[in-house]
Amino acid sequence: MPGRRPGSPATRDAILAAAREAFGAVGFERATIRDIAARADVDPALVIHYFGSKGALFATAMELPIKPAEFAARIFADGPECAGERLAEAFLALWEDPRFAAQVRGILRAAVSHDSAAASLRTFIEGQVVDAVTGYLGEDARLRFELAGSHLIGLAFARYILRAEPLASASVAELVALLGPTLQTYLAGVLIGDA
Amino acid sequence: MPGRRPGSPATRDAILAAAREAFGAVGFERATIRDIAARADVDPALVIHYFGSKGALFATAMELPIKPAEFAARIFADGPECAGERLAEAFLALWEDPRFAAQVRGILRAAVSHDSAAASLRTFIEGQVVDAVTGYLGEDARLRFELAGSHLIGLAFARYILRAEPLASASVAELVALLGPTLQTYLAGVLIGDA
Repeated sequence: MPGRRPGSPATRDAILAAAREAFGAVGFERATIRDIAARADVDPALVIHYFGSKGALFATAMELPIKPAEFAARIFADGPECAGERLAEAFLALWEDPRFAAQVRGILRAAVSHDSAAASLRTFIEGQVVDAVTGYLGEDARLRFELAGSHLIGLAFARYILRAEPLASASVAELVALLGPTLQTYLAGVLIGDA
Repeated sequence: MPGRRPGSPATRDAILAAAREAFGAVGFERATIRDIAARADVDPALVIHYFGSKGALFATAMELPIKPAEFAARIFADGPECAGERLAEAFLALWEDPRFAAQVRGILRAAVSHDSAAASLRTFIEGQVVDAVTGYLGEDARLRFELAGSHLIGLAFARYILRAEPLASASVAELVALLGPTLQTYLAGVLIGDA
Protein backbone atom coordinates (compact mmCIF):
# COMPACT_ATOMS: atom_id res chain seq x y z
CA MET A 1 0.00 0.00 0.00
CA PRO A 2 1.71 3.22 -1.06
CA GLY A 3 2.28 5.75 1.71
CA ARG A 4 1.56 3.21 4.46
CA ARG A 5 4.44 2.23 6.67
CA PRO A 6 5.10 -1.49 7.22
CA GLY A 7 5.08 -3.08 10.68
CA SER A 8 8.08 -2.16 12.85
CA PRO A 9 8.76 -0.81 16.36
CA ALA A 10 8.72 2.70 14.87
CA THR A 11 5.26 2.04 13.46
CA ARG A 12 4.05 0.84 16.83
CA ASP A 13 5.34 4.07 18.43
CA ALA A 14 3.72 6.14 15.68
CA ILE A 15 0.37 4.45 16.40
CA LEU A 16 0.75 5.15 20.13
CA ALA A 17 1.54 8.82 19.47
CA ALA A 18 -1.46 9.08 17.15
CA ALA A 19 -3.69 7.38 19.74
CA ARG A 20 -2.62 9.87 22.43
CA GLU A 21 -3.38 12.75 20.06
CA ALA A 22 -6.80 11.32 19.16
CA PHE A 23 -7.83 10.43 22.74
CA GLY A 24 -6.67 13.88 23.86
CA ALA A 25 -8.47 15.71 21.07
CA VAL A 26 -11.85 13.97 20.98
CA GLY A 27 -11.90 11.56 23.93
CA PHE A 28 -11.99 7.78 24.16
CA GLU A 29 -15.53 7.45 22.94
CA ARG A 30 -15.29 9.48 19.74
CA ALA A 31 -11.75 8.45 18.76
CA THR A 32 -11.87 5.60 16.23
CA ILE A 33 -9.31 3.01 15.17
CA ARG A 34 -9.74 4.31 11.62
CA ASP A 35 -8.94 7.89 12.67
CA ILE A 36 -5.94 6.81 14.74
CA ALA A 37 -4.61 4.72 11.84
CA ALA A 38 -4.99 7.69 9.48
CA ARG A 39 -3.09 9.98 11.88
CA ALA A 40 -0.29 7.37 12.07
CA ASP A 41 -0.42 6.80 8.31
CA VAL A 42 -0.92 3.04 8.66
CA ASP A 43 -3.64 0.57 7.80
CA PRO A 44 -6.34 0.16 10.50
CA ALA A 45 -5.68 -3.61 10.48
CA LEU A 46 -2.16 -2.92 11.70
CA VAL A 47 -3.53 -1.07 14.75
CA ILE A 48 -5.61 -4.15 15.61
CA HIS A 49 -2.62 -6.40 14.89
CA TYR A 50 -0.46 -4.53 17.40
CA PHE A 51 -2.99 -3.69 20.12
CA GLY A 52 -6.04 -5.92 19.68
CA SER A 53 -8.75 -3.38 20.57
CA LYS A 54 -9.37 0.30 21.20
CA GLY A 55 -9.48 -0.42 24.94
CA ALA A 56 -6.12 -2.17 24.90
CA LEU A 57 -4.63 0.60 22.76
CA PHE A 58 -5.91 3.13 25.27
CA ALA A 59 -4.35 1.23 28.18
CA THR A 60 -0.97 1.22 26.44
CA ALA A 61 -1.21 4.82 25.22
CA MET A 62 -2.09 5.83 28.78
CA GLU A 63 1.40 5.03 29.91
CA LEU A 64 2.27 8.67 30.11
CA PRO A 65 5.52 10.13 28.86
CA ILE A 66 6.78 10.16 32.42
CA LYS A 67 8.74 7.32 33.93
CA PRO A 68 7.23 6.73 37.39
CA ALA A 69 10.54 5.45 38.79
CA GLU A 70 12.45 8.54 37.62
CA PHE A 71 9.66 10.80 38.87
CA ALA A 72 9.85 9.18 42.31
CA ALA A 73 13.64 9.47 42.40
CA ARG A 74 13.33 13.21 41.69
CA ILE A 75 10.79 13.70 44.46
CA PHE A 76 12.99 12.05 47.08
CA ALA A 77 16.34 13.36 45.76
CA ASP A 78 16.59 16.12 48.39
CA GLY A 79 15.59 13.99 51.33
CA PRO A 80 12.23 13.05 52.83
CA GLU A 81 11.66 16.46 54.44
CA CYS A 82 11.42 18.11 50.99
CA ALA A 83 9.29 15.41 49.33
CA GLY A 84 5.99 17.33 49.55
CA GLU A 85 7.45 20.44 47.93
CA ARG A 86 9.31 18.47 45.23
CA LEU A 87 6.14 16.53 44.42
CA ALA A 88 4.12 19.74 44.04
CA GLU A 89 6.83 21.25 41.79
CA ALA A 90 7.24 18.16 39.62
CA PHE A 91 3.51 17.69 39.16
CA LEU A 92 2.81 21.34 38.29
CA ALA A 93 5.76 21.39 35.86
CA LEU A 94 4.14 18.52 33.91
CA TRP A 95 0.76 20.26 33.71
CA GLU A 96 2.21 23.64 32.74
CA ASP A 97 3.12 21.96 29.42
CA PRO A 98 -0.02 22.34 27.25
CA ARG A 99 0.70 19.10 25.34
CA PHE A 100 0.84 17.09 28.55
CA ALA A 101 -2.32 18.82 29.82
CA ALA A 102 -4.24 18.00 26.61
CA GLN A 103 -3.14 14.38 26.73
CA VAL A 104 -4.09 13.81 30.35
CA ARG A 105 -7.36 15.66 29.87
CA GLY A 106 -8.24 13.03 27.26
CA ILE A 107 -7.37 10.29 29.71
CA LEU A 108 -9.45 11.83 32.52
CA ARG A 109 -12.38 12.38 30.16
CA ALA A 110 -12.33 8.72 29.18
CA ALA A 111 -11.98 7.56 32.79
CA VAL A 112 -14.99 9.59 33.92
CA SER A 113 -17.08 8.33 30.97
CA HIS A 114 -16.16 4.66 30.67
CA ASP A 115 -15.65 2.03 33.33
CA SER A 116 -13.14 0.23 31.09
CA ALA A 117 -11.02 3.37 30.76
CA ALA A 118 -11.31 3.96 34.52
CA ALA A 119 -10.09 0.39 35.07
CA SER A 120 -7.10 0.99 32.78
CA LEU A 121 -6.15 4.19 34.57
CA ARG A 122 -6.65 2.54 37.97
CA THR A 123 -4.36 -0.34 36.97
CA PHE A 124 -1.73 2.12 35.79
CA ILE A 125 -1.91 4.24 38.97
CA GLU A 126 -2.01 1.30 41.37
CA GLY A 127 0.59 -0.76 39.52
CA GLN A 128 3.03 1.87 38.30
CA VAL A 129 2.76 5.22 40.05
CA VAL A 130 1.96 4.12 43.59
CA ASP A 131 4.38 1.19 43.42
CA ALA A 132 7.20 3.48 42.29
CA VAL A 133 6.77 5.84 45.22
CA THR A 134 5.91 3.34 47.92
CA GLY A 135 9.26 1.73 47.17
CA TYR A 136 10.63 4.78 49.00
CA LEU A 137 7.97 4.81 51.68
CA GLY A 138 7.11 1.21 52.51
CA GLU A 139 3.90 -0.63 51.74
CA ASP A 140 1.84 1.05 54.49
CA ALA A 141 2.22 4.34 52.64
CA ARG A 142 -0.16 3.48 49.80
CA LEU A 143 -3.24 5.13 51.31
CA ARG A 144 -1.39 8.31 52.25
CA PHE A 145 0.26 8.54 48.86
CA GLU A 146 -3.07 8.02 47.08
CA LEU A 147 -4.55 10.83 49.18
CA ALA A 148 -1.68 13.11 48.10
CA GLY A 149 -2.19 11.98 44.50
CA SER A 150 -5.94 12.57 44.67
CA HIS A 151 -5.24 16.15 45.78
CA LEU A 152 -2.99 16.67 42.75
CA ILE A 153 -5.52 15.20 40.29
CA GLY A 154 -8.21 17.45 41.75
CA LEU A 155 -5.89 20.45 41.58
CA ALA A 156 -5.16 19.75 37.90
CA PHE A 157 -8.90 19.49 37.24
CA ALA A 158 -9.76 22.74 39.04
CA ARG A 159 -6.81 24.77 37.68
CA TYR A 160 -6.27 23.47 34.14
CA ILE A 161 -9.66 22.10 33.09
CA LEU A 162 -12.25 24.01 35.13
CA ARG A 163 -10.01 27.10 35.36
CA ALA A 164 -11.61 28.24 38.62
CA GLU A 165 -10.33 31.59 39.84
CA PRO A 166 -8.22 32.56 41.72
CA LEU A 167 -6.67 29.08 41.43
CA ALA A 168 -6.18 29.25 37.66
CA SER A 169 -4.20 32.51 37.81
CA ALA A 170 -2.11 31.74 40.89
CA SER A 171 1.61 31.40 40.16
CA VAL A 172 3.31 28.02 40.36
CA ALA A 173 5.50 29.35 43.18
CA GLU A 174 2.45 30.44 45.19
CA LEU A 175 0.85 27.02 44.73
CA VAL A 176 4.01 25.11 45.61
CA ALA A 177 4.27 27.15 48.83
CA LEU A 178 0.73 26.10 49.82
CA LEU A 179 0.71 22.56 48.41
CA GLY A 180 4.16 21.52 49.60
CA PRO A 181 3.38 21.47 53.33
CA THR A 182 0.01 19.80 52.68
CA LEU A 183 1.50 16.95 50.67
CA GLN A 184 4.32 16.71 53.19
CA THR A 185 1.71 16.09 55.92
CA TYR A 186 0.59 12.93 54.12
CA LEU A 187 4.07 11.73 53.28
CA ALA A 188 5.65 12.68 56.60
CA GLY A 189 3.24 10.42 58.49
CA VAL A 190 5.06 7.57 56.81
CA LEU A 191 8.49 9.10 56.35
CA ILE A 192 8.94 9.83 60.05
CA GLY A 193 7.20 6.61 61.01
CA ASP A 194 4.12 7.81 62.86
CA ALA A 195 1.64 6.04 60.53
CA MET B 1 -51.51 15.89 24.34
CA PRO B 2 -52.60 13.02 26.56
CA GLY B 3 -50.10 11.98 29.21
CA ARG B 4 -48.07 15.19 28.88
CA ARG B 5 -48.10 17.53 31.83
CA PRO B 6 -48.84 21.23 31.22
CA GLY B 7 -46.41 23.99 32.16
CA SER B 8 -46.14 24.61 35.93
CA PRO B 9 -43.43 24.86 38.60
CA ALA B 10 -43.86 21.11 39.20
CA THR B 11 -43.19 20.48 35.49
CA ARG B 12 -40.07 22.60 35.62
CA ASP B 13 -38.83 20.57 38.60
CA ALA B 14 -39.68 17.31 36.83
CA ILE B 15 -37.61 18.42 33.82
CA LEU B 16 -34.68 19.29 36.09
CA ALA B 17 -34.88 15.90 37.81
CA ALA B 18 -35.02 14.17 34.43
CA ALA B 19 -32.06 16.21 33.17
CA ARG B 20 -29.96 15.22 36.20
CA GLU B 21 -30.83 11.57 35.60
CA ALA B 22 -29.97 11.79 31.89
CA PHE B 23 -26.71 13.74 32.36
CA GLY B 24 -25.72 11.30 35.11
CA ALA B 25 -26.58 8.22 33.07
CA VAL B 26 -25.15 9.05 29.66
CA GLY B 27 -23.27 12.35 30.03
CA PHE B 28 -23.83 15.81 28.64
CA GLU B 29 -22.94 14.89 25.08
CA ARG B 30 -25.22 11.90 24.63
CA ALA B 31 -28.17 13.20 26.64
CA THR B 32 -30.74 14.77 24.32
CA ILE B 33 -33.55 17.24 24.93
CA ARG B 34 -35.90 14.64 23.45
CA ASP B 35 -34.72 11.97 25.93
CA ILE B 36 -34.95 14.36 28.88
CA ALA B 37 -38.46 15.41 27.84
CA ALA B 38 -39.52 11.74 27.59
CA ARG B 39 -38.16 10.99 31.08
CA ALA B 40 -40.09 13.99 32.44
CA ASP B 41 -43.18 13.05 30.41
CA VAL B 42 -43.42 16.46 28.75
CA ASP B 43 -43.14 17.80 25.21
CA PRO B 44 -39.55 18.65 24.12
CA ALA B 45 -40.74 22.16 23.22
CA LEU B 46 -41.56 22.73 26.87
CA VAL B 47 -37.96 21.96 27.84
CA ILE B 48 -36.75 24.62 25.40
CA HIS B 49 -39.48 26.99 26.64
CA TYR B 50 -38.25 26.71 30.23
CA PHE B 51 -34.48 26.47 29.73
CA GLY B 52 -33.64 27.67 26.21
CA SER B 53 -30.89 25.17 25.40
CA LYS B 54 -29.24 21.97 26.59
CA GLY B 55 -26.33 24.02 27.93
CA ALA B 56 -28.60 26.29 29.95
CA LEU B 57 -30.56 23.29 31.22
CA PHE B 58 -27.29 21.70 32.31
CA ALA B 59 -26.23 24.86 34.16
CA THR B 60 -29.50 24.89 36.09
CA ALA B 61 -29.57 21.13 36.69
CA MET B 62 -26.02 21.41 37.99
CA GLU B 63 -27.22 23.30 41.00
CA LEU B 64 -26.75 20.33 43.23
CA PRO B 65 -29.25 19.21 45.85
CA ILE B 66 -27.08 20.82 48.49
CA LYS B 67 -27.55 24.35 49.69
CA PRO B 68 -24.07 25.91 49.81
CA ALA B 69 -25.03 28.29 52.62
CA GLU B 70 -26.37 25.45 54.82
CA PHE B 71 -23.36 23.31 53.98
CA ALA B 72 -21.03 26.13 55.06
CA ALA B 73 -22.97 26.69 58.28
CA ARG B 74 -22.59 23.00 59.13
CA ILE B 75 -18.84 23.07 58.52
CA PHE B 76 -18.29 26.01 60.85
CA ALA B 77 -20.92 25.06 63.46
CA ASP B 78 -18.35 23.60 65.88
CA GLY B 79 -15.89 26.44 65.58
CA PRO B 80 -13.01 27.13 63.22
CA GLU B 81 -10.69 24.55 64.77
CA CYS B 82 -13.00 21.72 63.64
CA ALA B 83 -13.73 23.07 60.14
CA GLY B 84 -11.33 20.73 58.30
CA GLU B 85 -12.78 17.62 59.93
CA ARG B 86 -16.40 18.76 59.46
CA LEU B 87 -15.71 19.55 55.80
CA ALA B 88 -14.23 16.08 55.22
CA GLU B 89 -17.23 14.44 56.96
CA ALA B 90 -19.87 16.49 55.14
CA PHE B 91 -18.27 15.94 51.72
CA LEU B 92 -17.82 12.18 52.16
CA ALA B 93 -21.39 11.84 53.47
CA LEU B 94 -22.68 13.33 50.19
CA TRP B 95 -20.62 10.96 48.03
CA GLU B 96 -21.49 7.87 50.06
CA ASP B 97 -25.02 8.31 48.65
CA PRO B 98 -24.96 6.48 45.28
CA ARG B 99 -27.58 8.82 43.77
CA PHE B 100 -25.49 11.88 44.56
CA ALA B 101 -22.36 10.14 43.25
CA ALA B 102 -24.05 9.25 39.94
CA GLN B 103 -25.33 12.79 39.50
CA VAL B 104 -22.00 14.48 40.17
CA ARG B 105 -20.20 11.93 38.00
CA GLY B 106 -22.37 13.12 35.11
CA ILE B 107 -21.45 16.70 35.88
CA LEU B 108 -17.71 15.95 36.06
CA ARG B 109 -17.88 13.95 32.84
CA ALA B 110 -19.47 16.88 31.04
CA ALA B 111 -17.01 19.37 32.53
CA VAL B 112 -14.00 17.34 31.37
CA SER B 113 -15.47 16.92 27.87
CA HIS B 114 -17.00 20.31 27.08
CA ASP B 115 -15.70 23.80 27.68
CA SER B 116 -19.28 25.08 28.02
CA ALA B 117 -20.04 22.58 30.78
CA ALA B 118 -16.72 23.41 32.47
CA ALA B 119 -17.71 27.09 32.35
CA SER B 120 -21.08 26.30 33.95
CA LEU B 121 -19.48 24.31 36.75
CA ARG B 122 -16.81 26.98 37.24
CA THR B 123 -19.48 29.67 37.57
CA PHE B 124 -21.38 27.56 40.10
CA ILE B 125 -18.25 26.84 42.18
CA GLU B 126 -16.90 30.39 42.08
CA GLY B 127 -20.26 32.07 42.55
CA GLN B 128 -22.01 29.74 44.97
CA VAL B 129 -19.76 27.34 46.82
CA VAL B 130 -16.69 29.52 47.35
CA ASP B 131 -18.79 32.59 48.13
CA ALA B 132 -20.77 30.68 50.76
CA VAL B 133 -17.67 29.60 52.63
CA THR B 134 -15.56 32.70 52.22
CA GLY B 135 -18.35 34.56 53.97
CA TYR B 136 -16.99 32.81 57.04
CA LEU B 137 -13.35 33.23 56.13
CA GLY B 138 -12.97 36.61 54.45
CA GLU B 139 -12.19 37.32 50.80
CA ASP B 140 -8.49 36.40 51.01
CA ALA B 141 -9.49 32.81 51.74
CA ARG B 142 -10.64 32.02 48.20
CA LEU B 143 -7.39 30.46 47.01
CA ARG B 144 -6.96 28.34 50.13
CA PHE B 145 -10.55 27.18 50.02
CA GLU B 146 -10.28 26.27 46.35
CA LEU B 147 -7.18 24.22 47.15
CA ALA B 148 -9.15 22.37 49.83
CA GLY B 149 -12.02 21.91 47.37
CA SER B 150 -9.69 20.65 44.64
CA HIS B 151 -8.43 18.00 47.06
CA LEU B 152 -11.99 16.86 47.72
CA ILE B 153 -12.90 16.71 44.01
CA GLY B 154 -9.77 14.66 43.34
CA LEU B 155 -10.55 12.40 46.27
CA ALA B 156 -14.07 11.78 44.94
CA PHE B 157 -12.61 10.97 41.51
CA ALA B 158 -9.98 8.55 42.86
CA ARG B 159 -12.28 6.83 45.40
CA TYR B 160 -15.71 6.76 43.75
CA ILE B 161 -14.98 6.89 40.01
CA LEU B 162 -11.50 5.39 39.58
CA ARG B 163 -11.90 3.16 42.66
CA ALA B 164 -8.15 3.05 43.27
CA GLU B 165 -7.17 0.77 46.13
CA PRO B 166 -6.61 1.05 49.05
CA LEU B 167 -8.42 4.40 48.84
CA ALA B 168 -11.71 2.92 47.61
CA SER B 169 -11.99 0.47 50.51
CA ALA B 170 -10.82 2.77 53.29
CA SER B 171 -13.52 3.58 55.84
CA VAL B 172 -15.01 7.05 56.03
CA ALA B 173 -13.66 7.38 59.58
CA GLU B 174 -10.13 6.53 58.45
CA LEU B 175 -10.32 9.09 55.65
CA VAL B 176 -11.76 11.81 57.87
CA ALA B 177 -8.88 11.25 60.29
CA LEU B 178 -6.35 11.81 57.49
CA LEU B 179 -8.22 14.49 55.49
CA GLY B 180 -9.38 16.60 58.44
CA PRO B 181 -5.94 17.90 59.46
CA THR B 182 -4.97 18.44 55.81
CA LEU B 183 -8.02 20.56 55.04
CA GLN B 184 -7.57 22.33 58.35
CA THR B 185 -4.07 23.38 57.23
CA TYR B 186 -5.58 25.29 54.33
CA LEU B 187 -8.44 26.77 56.31
CA ALA B 188 -6.42 27.52 59.43
CA GLY B 189 -4.04 29.77 57.47
CA VAL B 190 -7.00 32.08 57.12
CA LEU B 191 -8.95 31.22 60.27
CA ILE B 192 -6.07 32.05 62.58
CA GLY B 193 -5.04 34.99 60.43
CA ASP B 194 -1.57 33.95 59.22
CA ALA B 195 -2.39 34.09 55.51
